Amino acid sequence: MYEKIKYRVYDILVETDDGELIDRIVAVFLMLLILINAVAVVLETVDEYSAAYGSLFHAIEIVSVTIFTVEYLLRLWVAPLNPQYAGRFGRLRYAFSLMALIDLLAILPTFLPMIFTMDLRILRFIRTFRLFRLFKLSRYVESLDKVDDVIVSKKEELLVTLVMISMLLLFSSSLMYLVENEAQADKFPHIPAAMWWGVATLTTVGYGDIFPITPLGKILGAFIALLGIGMFALPAGILASGFAEELSKRRRKDGECCCPNCGCDLSADFEKKTK
Amino acid sequence: MYEKIKYRVYDILVETDDGELIDRIVAVFLMLLILINAVAVVLETVDEYSAAYGSLFHAIEIVSVTIFTVEYLLRLWVAPLNPQYAGRFGRLRYAFSLMALIDLLAILPTFLPMIFTMDLRILRFIRTFRLFRLFKLSRYVESLDKVDDVIVSKKEELLVTLVMISMLLLFSSSLMYLVENEAQADKFPHIPAAMWWGVATLTTVGYGDIFPITPLGKILGAFIALLGIGMFALPAGILASGFAEELSKRRRKDGECCCPNCGCDLSADFEKKTK
Amino acid sequence: MYEKIKYRVYDILVETDDGELIDRIVAVFLMLLILINAVAVVLETVDEYSAAYGSLFHAIEIVSVTIFTVEYLLRLWVAPLNPQYAGRFGRLRYAFSLMALIDLLAILPTFLPMIFTMDLRILRFIRTFRLFRLFKLSRYVESLDKVDDVIVSKKEELLVTLVMISMLLLFSSSLMYLVENEAQADKFPHIPAAMWWGVATLTTVGYGDIFPITPLGKILGAFIALLGIGMFALPAGILASGFAEELSKRRRKDGECCCPNCGCDLSADFEKKTK
Amino acid sequence: MYEKIKYRVYDILVETDDGELIDRIVAVFLMLLILINAVAVVLETVDEYSAAYGSLFHAIEIVSVTIFTVEYLLRLWVAPLNPQYAGRFGRLRYAFSLMALIDLLAILPTFLPMIFTMDLRILRFIRTFRLFRLFKLSRYVESLDKVDDVIVSKKEELLVTLVMISMLLLFSSSLMYLVENEAQADKFPHIPAAMWWGVATLTTVGYGDIFPITPLGKILGAFIALLGIGMFALPAGILASGFAEELSKRRRKDGECCCPNCGCDLSADFEKKTK
Repeated sequence: MYEKIKYRVYDILVETDDGELIDRIVAVFLMLLILINAVAVVLETVDEYSAAYGSLFHAIEIVSVTIFTVEYLLRLWVAPLNPQYAGRFGRLRYAFSLMALIDLLAILPTFLPMIFTMDLRILRFIRTFRLFRLFKLSRYVESLDKVDDVIVSKKEELLVTLVMISMLLLFSSSLMYLVENEAQADKFPHIPAAMWWGVATLTTVGYGDIFPITPLGKILGAFIALLGIGMFALPAGILASGFAEELSKRRRKDGECCCPNCGCDLSADFEKKTK
Repeated sequence: MYEKIKYRVYDILVETDDGELIDRIVAVFLMLLILINAVAVVLETVDEYSAAYGSLFHAIEIVSVTIFTVEYLLRLWVAPLNPQYAGRFGRLRYAFSLMALIDLLAILPTFLPMIFTMDLRILRFIRTFRLFRLFKLSRYVESLDKVDDVIVSKKEELLVTLVMISMLLLFSSSLMYLVENEAQADKFPHIPAAMWWGVATLTTVGYGDIFPITPLGKILGAFIALLGIGMFALPAGILASGFAEELSKRRRKDGECCCPNCGCDLSADFEKKTK
Repeated sequence: MYEKIKYRVYDILVETDDGELIDRIVAVFLMLLILINAVAVVLETVDEYSAAYGSLFHAIEIVSVTIFTVEYLLRLWVAPLNPQYAGRFGRLRYAFSLMALIDLLAILPTFLPMIFTMDLRILRFIRTFRLFRLFKLSRYVESLDKVDDVIVSKKEELLVTLVMISMLLLFSSSLMYLVENEAQADKFPHIPAAMWWGVATLTTVGYGDIFPITPLGKILGAFIALLGIGMFALPAGILASGFAEELSKRRRKDGECCCPNCGCDLSADFEKKTK
Repeated sequence: MYEKIKYRVYDILVETDDGELIDRIVAVFLMLLILINAVAVVLETVDEYSAAYGSLFHAIEIVSVTIFTVEYLLRLWVAPLNPQYAGRFGRLRYAFSLMALIDLLAILPTFLPMIFTMDLRILRFIRTFRLFRLFKLSRYVESLDKVDDVIVSKKEELLVTLVMISMLLLFSSSLMYLVENEAQADKFPHIPAAMWWGVATLTTVGYGDIFPITPLGKILGAFIALLGIGMFALPAGILASGFAEELSKRRRKDGECCCPNCGCDLSADFEKKTK
């Protein structure tokens, strides 16, 4: 009986691929709960709402944390049924897996203030930290892997882009500091201030709180802004080739050596032709 | 005679591929009418124009809605001649097709205020809703499908990008709220306000109405702005591989197993070589 | 003798591929003259410079227009030597070619005010029009074709993108007008004003002269700004696949059916293998 | 003994591929020193920090420049061990290689003020120039080549894009100057001022310090802003096809004629099939 319930729980919470109705209901229910939580955390910071619906927010919190705690404990309980976490220290290994840690961090912000006394500022930080619950959603977003894989496979090139961007930022900001410092000592007092301008310009955000006013500064700023275009073009180009490669790899796994244009099986074709 | 006219109408309005002159005249006339309508709706909101050319705008509206109503009824009348809508309930099934609904929604904003009494605000909303007529144009833009197909074929990856962007937005805005709330209580009073900053920064719009002023806030803002670059790079990369795939699929339909580089027929080539 | 000079001029001005030193000197000289002209037109509008170096600017203009006129007449004179413009009306056909018209438009702004009397405003417009001389440069930028070809080959998809952007702009601006008109009657008095906001937001320029202030307007604005990301992603994706295709086509012209990955000659490879 | 030490130094400083622990320690130490230097140069410009930690910054500078000088001399000493710089004038040829010049420029800013007397302004410029030390890092970023190669291989197309952008900038700015000059003589007094607007708009930075206010200027500005989208799309598309090509070339070097989709060896496959 005990084992039967354990298998049933494992089936519902972990083995969600078999398309049972109950699996989907539980999944949708948990997803909705996570989203409601995020909305509550965000709206709670608005004074009007926290005054008017304070008790509602509190109720959502109590219910959510109870359910998430039960979910966490259940997942820990049934973990050894997963072949990956079977055997010695299986439950412990599961507890240190990424998803289990996310589940734990999702409930900690509620329990921590009960144990330790905290000043208001840290308390507010911890309350906001409940947004971390959103990461629990990653369990349900399947295509996340596809996009993730591409980013990981191109991490070297993306890193180089980041290094190039950082150096471009450092040099252009320092130059702008040298050029504008005298004319606008209040806006460009030192290089870190100029870097705030540099980020706003290279990312093309351009808040407009700080910009060059001297002719030389404007000419320099114009060139830097034009160089900033490459900052979007480089990662876009890298990721485009990454997604194209990923597609090829997935086809390869399917065991077919197929024509890249028409998708037909080249090998089969050759066999026919050469007979 | 009756049937002959029906076929002729069907030929002119629906079967526009045979390149008859009358087909094209009707199509161009309807397209122009749609565009004139859009311009009229936009300009009518300018007080000067609505005062000076009020009667002209009214005339355009009366003429347009008459023609669009006749067009709608004619299309409904001849719908069963289309094999897709032949047989039982054919006309009803057509009436619920996307293009028929668009045609209906294009004339409704004129008829609704005649039937129901409405306050001015809703009336203005409904008047603006006439812009919906622009969607009637989609009947004439053939390449729309190509672009549409690519977006649809990559909808999973684009959705994941949207999820990643949403989470990035939520986390960065919440962090910025925690950091800037004390220094700028009027600009960052709660997380939703910080999210307005987050959107303006991540999309690189940067109106400049709200931005961090504390050193920590600026450092955080700089990192978030740099991360925002990925928001453009990811969908661009996804769509680039999507357009490349689409091209392959179209070639495949042409029944050729062709070399991806030179377009020549590989199979034919092999045949020749292996003989 | 006369014919010999004519051939020599044709050789120097038109047949620049044979890499003679004199060809290159003439080309570089003309390019420099074009660039100096552009700089002069730009700097002449600055009052200080036009006061201080007025006579220099005048001298540049006189010299340039003389040389460009001689160049135009010489090109017209030798045009029939080009097989493309040989035979009847050859010179006339050349005179109406794109490059000849550009050459003509480059010198017209100087001659027109001599013939017609003009008020100051139009005169200033015509003076600025001398920038048109820059288009003469396109004769010397060879790779321009490559980029041009890609844009032309993808013009359908790019047009669809433009249509989608226009409709997105029209709808989002109209919605924003309905939402913000009451709160900011001075900033969103009519749809055209809202469209100025729409362009600034969808292109992520974000001057900050106009933006929503109501909560509903900000939510709407946030969604529109996020949609605006697609405006960069779509054309980038389209052009990426366009450049990839172009590369294939050029290889095809080289007469090789080559492996898309390694560039080696597949056909030759097969021949060897199947012997 | 002398030769042995020389070989050992060469082994540690130059031949870093053999994965010895000491190699990596030296590399990481030098990298950290470079980064500490950059941070010091940036923070030193903040008055508070330079007042509080002035002696620390001075100490970092003395230590760094000593180490970098020793590094430079050691590299010069062992250069002839590198086959590339063996033989006559080997050391001289090394001294004029890019990396050696970077190493030299990294220490010059400290030695120059010792030799020449300089006014404060140039001194500050030279002090900031120490940021140049960051380029020493390029020795350690291996993937830099990959990204670099792509940019170099596509330099023609990227140059054309730059030319197109420059011409678009010049024409749109001149037009805007003609349109807005009368209404905003203080913001658009001449074309160079209008070009500052043009850059801010085409790069979508949009500081908001200058923008059109007349209806005609806004319509023109809207079209220019929309055209600016292409400025991101073109280089992104070019680089995307560049990265795809690069990948092919690298595979080609591996000597395999492989299927672009599955990566399997086509030649081997054919051999098997045709036997």
